Amino acid sequence: MGPTVAWRGDRVAVIDQTRLPHELVVVELRTVDDLIEAITRLVVRGAPALGAVGALGVALAAVVADRDGGGPGRVRADAARLRAARPTAVNLAWAVDRICVHLPYGTAAVIDAAVALAEEDVRINRRLAERGADWVQANVGPRVRVHTHCNAGALATVGWGTALGVVRALQARGGVTEVLADETRPLLQGARLTAFELAGMGVPYRVVVDGAGPSLIARGFVDVVIVGADRIACNGDVANKIGTYPLALAADRAGVPFVVAAPESTVDLATADGAAIPIEDRPPDEVLSFAGVSVAPAGARALNPAFDITPAALVTAIVTETRVVRPARGERVGPAPSAPTTAGDPAA
Amino acid sequence: MGPTVAWRGDRVAVIDQTRLPHELVVVELRTVDDLIEAITRLVVRGAPALGAVGALGVALAAVVADRDGGGPGRVRADAARLRAARPTAVNLAWAVDRICVHLPYGTAAVIDAAVALAEEDVRINRRLAERGADWVQANVGPRVRVHTHCNAGALATVGWGTALGVVRALQARGGVTEVLADETRPLLQGARLTAFELAGMGVPYRVVVDGAGPSLIARGFVDVVIVGADRIACNGDVANKIGTYPLALAADRAGVPFVVAAPESTVDLATADGAAIPIEDRPPDEVLSFAGVSVAPAGARALNPAFDITPAALVTAIVTETRVVRPARGERVGPAPSAPTTAGDPAA
Repeated sequence: MGPTVAWRGDRVAVIDQTRLPHELVVVELRTVDDLIEAITRLVVRGAPALGAVGALGVALAAVVADRDGGGPGRVRADAARLRAARPTAVNLAWAVDRICVHLPYGTAAVIDAAVALAEEDVRINRRLAERGADWVQANVGPRVRVHTHCNAGALATVGWGTALGVVRALQARGGVTEVLADETRPLLQGARLTAFELAGMGVPYRVVVDGAGPSLIARGFVDVVIVGADRIACNGDVANKIGTYPLALAADRAGVPFVVAAPESTVDLATADGAAIPIEDRPPDEVLSFAGVSVAPAGARALNPAFDITPAALVTAIVTETRVVRPARGERVGPAPSAPTTAGDPAA
Repeated sequence: MGPTVAWRGDRVAVIDQTRLPHELVVVELRTVDDLIEAITRLVVRGAPALGAVGALGVALAAVVADRDGGGPGRVRADAARLRAARPTAVNLAWAVDRICVHLPYGTAAVIDAAVALAEEDVRINRRLAERGADWVQANVGPRVRVHTHCNAGALATVGWGTALGVVRALQARGGVTEVLADETRPLLQGARLTAFELAGMGVPYRVVVDGAGPSLIARGFVDVVIVGADRIACNGDVANKIGTYPLALAADRAGVPFVVAAPESTVDLATADGAAIPIEDRPPDEVLSFAGVSVAPAGARALNPAFDITPAALVTAIVTETRVVRPARGERVGPAPSAPTTAGDPAA
């Protein structure tokens, strides 16, 4: 499998995640509108991947404006629309803002910066994965059973993965016995994408319905819960895919560590706590149908929040490429101690 | 809609719940094998309905033995198979045992006892529903927003319902604003059956994915959680459909009452606590596919526990037809103060 997101000269190529696990198809996006549609349809999803696609989207806007006209005003308008395509994952806005800083230096500079940001994602994930695996082996055990939710793997990033990156690093050390993967309704990123990645890694796994995770944790089926994040607030509150919070509640009660693996770009120092994180509500039809089949009575209504907030008090550890923060012990997130990811950034 | 389960001369008629909400079909079961298959396929499900069908199943076994031969030995063997068709809901075994007591008195006596047990279910549900509505209005408020899980309605019983019976009673008093109904994977009893019943009652409702319930409780979307039960242990631990426990965890943290509505026949005085309740594991394919559509990669494995245990400490109130017990305050369940449901039972 190639990168989840890549630049191809004058367009953005992404793996179409709506067609996995049955088909591995790469689609090319030639306009900012195509890109936004791909983001809203979840053809591409996952906070770090949204960062990469946001960065490459600004490059695409610049290329399109050079070719079709519209000038800097059009590029900035496209960037603003792109930035707002999904509200919860902070990486999208973060990356768009970072690349827009390069617009005065010309399209080539914008492309270089965007490609560098996307490529850096894999290196960041490898670093946070090794750090996470170190933490798990030191604090949980040499060989562990992991519970995870949604997909925080290579498909949620440019490559390697965050929570599944930690599993990948553990697997390389012979340190993972089994992964229980929540199917993650409504769009089944766990059953479709995480299962696909775990099978590819050769990690033993079982898919469970989202409602089963908490009681399996209580019954002693797992040693550690590892999830990704869409936004981390200053106080350590974590926004992640809907259904994460119940795992944290169950892990807390069972004394099982609850670990969040995410890059520093997911930390939002402008957000004081979880109450300030916007929660995206998605279309009811995602809930009212299943794999294309209508399940509820005609006229049924649904409420479809895409994310939930896990309070800092339930988060044992947040692992990034530069540090481990322990919110449940009262540690606040704050700025990273060093900021290697901003090297070479003219805004830094 | 007629009764969920009924006796028709020499056969058992049940609403086929696998075909709802799109088709309302009654199927007739003429042999104990047909009945067991209907139970294991969840054509008929819900603890009180399983009690009724268990009772009528003993009557069916007696009728078939009279017609086809086999004698009392065959009837008792059929009853034993029926009793074991599903392990978690205690009502099935309870009802089979109750009706087997009548076998020495002849088939007509068995049929009378079984039909009486099934018909009594509706009266019991009405009583527990009024008691539950009283409790909710006295302890939560005159008009409430309810969260429920799976289906504990008319379809889970012979008629009226337990948790949804309480909603029905509240609705008659103008006491319910909205119900949030968990879809309840893997078999979507919430999206299919509870939505169907709530629409029929004229109660405003929205379906949510199972992972969303806990954070919606934390965000203040509901005033009370009301669920049914498959077995209640002496100490107040409650077995119910997988995905119930996370609601109890979230309700406890949010200070939202968590109420279990169930008949006394769901209380199992022979079970000391939740650890002694057998949890049925169902086929992996229920998780890995839906309506014939495979969602996971080829070769994927799944773990599919059908129930979870909510510890007594998280249960604000258990409401039956005769009493309210408050396990979270340390009250044990024990025997009911009176036992009106055993009137006329030769074993009583």
